Amino acid sequence: MKLVLVRHGQSEWNLANLFTGWTDVDLSENGVKEAKLAGQLIKKAGIEFDIAYTSVLKRAIKTCQYILEESDQLWIPMEKHWRLNERHYGALQGLNKAETAEKYGEDQVHIWRRSYNISPPEMEPEQGKVFRSDRRYSMLDEKLIPLTENLEITLERVMPFYEDHIAPNLKQGKNILVAAHGNSLRALCKYLENISNEVIPSLEIATGQPIVYELSDKLEIINKKILTTDE
Amino acid sequence: MKLVLVRHGQSEWNLANLFTGWTDVDLSENGVKEAKLAGQLIKKAGIEFDIAYTSVLKRAIKTCQYILEESDQLWIPMEKHWRLNERHYGALQGLNKAETAEKYGEDQVHIWRRSYNISPPEMEPEQGKVFRSDRRYSMLDEKLIPLTENLEITLERVMPFYEDHIAPNLKQGKNILVAAHGNSLRALCKYLENISNEVIPSLEIATGQPIVYELSDKLEIINKKILTTDE
Repeated sequence: MKLVLVRHGQSEWNLANLFTGWTDVDLSENGVKEAKLAGQLIKKAGIEFDIAYTSVLKRAIKTCQYILEESDQLWIPMEKHWRLNERHYGALQGLNKAETAEKYGEDQVHIWRRSYNISPPEMEPEQGKVFRSDRRYSMLDEKLIPLTENLEITLERVMPFYEDHIAPNLKQGKNILVAAHGNSLRALCKYLENISNEVIPSLEIATGQPIVYELSDKLEIINKKILTTDE
Repeated sequence: MKLVLVRHGQSEWNLANLFTGWTDVDLSENGVKEAKLAGQLIKKAGIEFDIAYTSVLKRAIKTCQYILEESDQLWIPMEKHWRLNERHYGALQGLNKAETAEKYGEDQVHIWRRSYNISPPEMEPEQGKVFRSDRRYSMLDEKLIPLTENLEITLERVMPFYEDHIAPNLKQGKNILVAAHGNSLRALCKYLENISNEVIPSLEIATGQPIVYELSDKLEIINKKILTTDE
């Protein structure tokens, strides 16, 4: 069975150099191209999915849709879940990355971006209400809706989704697509490849380049391959 | 609770005047516009869905996706099911409507298109194998995969989906979107509005114009409204 991870294509806020996190911004024009290309790479590799998972954020959902469409399998079941969301970026969401570096210093911003277990400052409660009153999170216990997250916290909320949805389906021999975000995918890679807390923050996952894991029936990695146009 | 039915926008084969049925053709450029417009009408009407259902054919799936995206609710759960597919058009699938009328006569084609319980000729078994070996139908008992259908047969295979998925969710007070096809939607309208076998074949459902049913807790119709740009 195969597990394929794809990071969404460029978003409008990637393009504008803003911290995004849980903010629901759209793909940029280039991001759409990246998503379609990922689908074409998957088609070329002949990978047939049984189910696709994505977050509740449109940049990942649309990436998932484009991949399925371009690989002629738009009819595949596709589930959206908040646990696959990007890491919540706290008070940094919506701020310009360069301006933030000027204000707090490069080193501090690097820590917020790339430490395993140090979170950016919490979002102001008033701002946080926007997410807590968002209909897509309305069925959740409020405590589950973060005001900030680091990679460790992200991993802790991604793993139940892996354990309850992804792993059981892989064990049944199904091929699974996960179209999600830099940090929710880092969390999955960390678990699957048993990467240390120290190393994982620096693992770069390229947008729109499918990571194809071939797994044993015990869900051990038999093979890992990244699909690119360079081949 | 609200049940909203939307017939997919124009497909490439609608445009080319071919019988389509279960053939998985894409939306035309105009069909994409119609789908987006349907989403804008739903947004303007302020309708918030809890779940969306569509068929396993891309013209309906993409219509559903565009509607959810344009109405800012792409994160809504969306399920795809073969029971919502268009009526299978048998041996007519892929044939030109005008040529078929020349060959068999206008009257005969009208009977095939608009009688309640007379089916077009069956697809040749060789042709039928294409659908029976299609991965999206591979989990089905072969007997469920038709070689032709009329509206009555279509209704009989749509209704279990209504009974098991749509009705229970409506009863829980959920708002539901169904983006599907002329005949699978006719089947739902016939049931909901208690339309006779004689009248239902002539019920025209316009593409991309949402039919909004407001229902009682016994699922009786309180109000029916069709959303158009004319208002």
